[in-house]
Amino acid sequence: MTTETQSDFARATAVTGRPDSTFATDLDGAWTVAGAVNGGYLLSVIGRALSATVPEFPDPLVISAYYLGRSDPGSAEVATRIIRAGRSSATLGADLSQAGAPTITALATFGSLGALPDDVATSARHPDLPAPEDCMSIADGPREYLDLAPIASRFDMRFDPATAGFATGAPSGRGLLRGWIRHSDGADADPLALLTFLDAFPPAMFDLGRFGWAPTMELTAHVRAIPASGWIAVKVETRNIAGGMFEEDCELWDSTGRLVAQSRQLARQPR
Amino acid sequence: MTTETQSDFARATAVTGRPDSTFATDLDGAWTVAGAVNGGYLLSVIGRALSATVPEFPDPLVISAYYLGRSDPGSAEVATRIIRAGRSSATLGADLSQAGAPTITALATFGSLGALPDDVATSARHPDLPAPEDCMSIADGPREYLDLAPIASRFDMRFDPATAGFATGAPSGRGLLRGWIRHSDGADADPLALLTFLDAFPPAMFDLGRFGWAPTMELTAHVRAIPASGWIAVKVETRNIAGGMFEEDCELWDSTGRLVAQSRQLARQPR
Repeated sequence: MTTETQSDFARATAVTGRPDSTFATDLDGAWTVAGAVNGGYLLSVIGRALSATVPEFPDPLVISAYYLGRSDPGSAEVATRIIRAGRSSATLGADLSQAGAPTITALATFGSLGALPDDVATSARHPDLPAPEDCMSIADGPREYLDLAPIASRFDMRFDPATAGFATGAPSGRGLLRGWIRHSDGADADPLALLTFLDAFPPAMFDLGRFGWAPTMELTAHVRAIPASGWIAVKVETRNIAGGMFEEDCELWDSTGRLVAQSRQLARQPR
Repeated sequence: MTTETQSDFARATAVTGRPDSTFATDLDGAWTVAGAVNGGYLLSVIGRALSATVPEFPDPLVISAYYLGRSDPGSAEVATRIIRAGRSSATLGADLSQAGAPTITALATFGSLGALPDDVATSARHPDLPAPEDCMSIADGPREYLDLAPIASRFDMRFDPATAGFATGAPSGRGLLRGWIRHSDGADADPLALLTFLDAFPPAMFDLGRFGWAPTMELTAHVRAIPASGWIAVKVETRNIAGGMFEEDCELWDSTGRLVAQSRQLARQPR
């Protein structure tokens, strides 16, 4: 693939293998909020290194990341190790570090989504939301937010007006956000991009009027299918806010109506 | 603590530290199903070794376990490592192995549940279910199941009749089980026991009439509070069954109505 045809996301998450089985990468300042590199983007960078470690199992099936500290734009290293390689999947470990200090440690099982059986008996329901053109674009969001979050321009992100009160000073108090997402350059999402999309929406705490930074402690993502071309529907919800922490669940649905990825994270409450 | 006053659970999950920072343990044949040691019980054994590794942070806040293969009753080893120790929590890795072969690899963040702030703004709702005495006891379940699952006698487990159709040949098809659980010797659950309780109920697939073994690939548990004395209410549900795998969520609520633990697992569908 030439640079001309590479998507913005593919370029920004590229890793370069070294002989010692570590990967060099350059964390892109365009994928930051308030100067810190976004956690979902970092998950995709780690995922790309893991995928390169076991090329026969290119796709994340499940990945659990523990965030140890903030990551800054600039050079970083991903060290991967194969823990167990089976016939249809491999379980691996990965550590992302900057200047020798680990910022994320992760475990994952990778496989081949295209080789899975095609049964679907999902009982979860697609989020009920208006068409993208009837939703509020993040590009029309508050100027202060857009200035603070360069990552916002990496996506075409649309919020269901029914859950977009956070942007107009009237959060609903339910802890629920719904909407749509796709890459701003029009590239379709691949399984690694779903890892970014799972943590791309504003925190569900925004819908409770709590706008501070909510650092993720742990995030586990399940990727269940290769997404079809087009918009991805998003639902983000928090149901358990207690003891200074909160749990947040995210679902991603592709344009055929399939639940292609889910995540749950444990985060510290905004101050 | 003398052996006389130790609970059955504490005895069965005991670990002995060695000078090389590994822990020896004896996996108890009473905590098995069809000869394989139960995954939740194994999580508690790993949790006990992690707790002993960082005594200032005794409680699991979040733990992610990747199951690599079955574990058998008998001797096993848990190797732990501190990845990052902070002021209020520590992130660690752990590997359970038998005869030199890893069967589980895990990451976890441990802290002190008693030291957390006491805010509770949980919007999840306590499962709606009858009192324990109006539920079906597992002790009255099918003889063949009880013979196959010695672990069943480790718990006093009660099923809401509305979701107990799996036991009488009439599963509801919703993929939902509700009920109550406590230790059969009457000991109250501590935070480590919640890790066992999260994977103690039958798989939600039973409510879909699919009774085969469903091996867990990955399970992440959040423990949010020290449970109050008494029964623990349980809700187990699956919402995304596709591609040969399924996701299953479990909630545990204590006798004061607090959501004390949650888990999500990705498992392979029963054949």
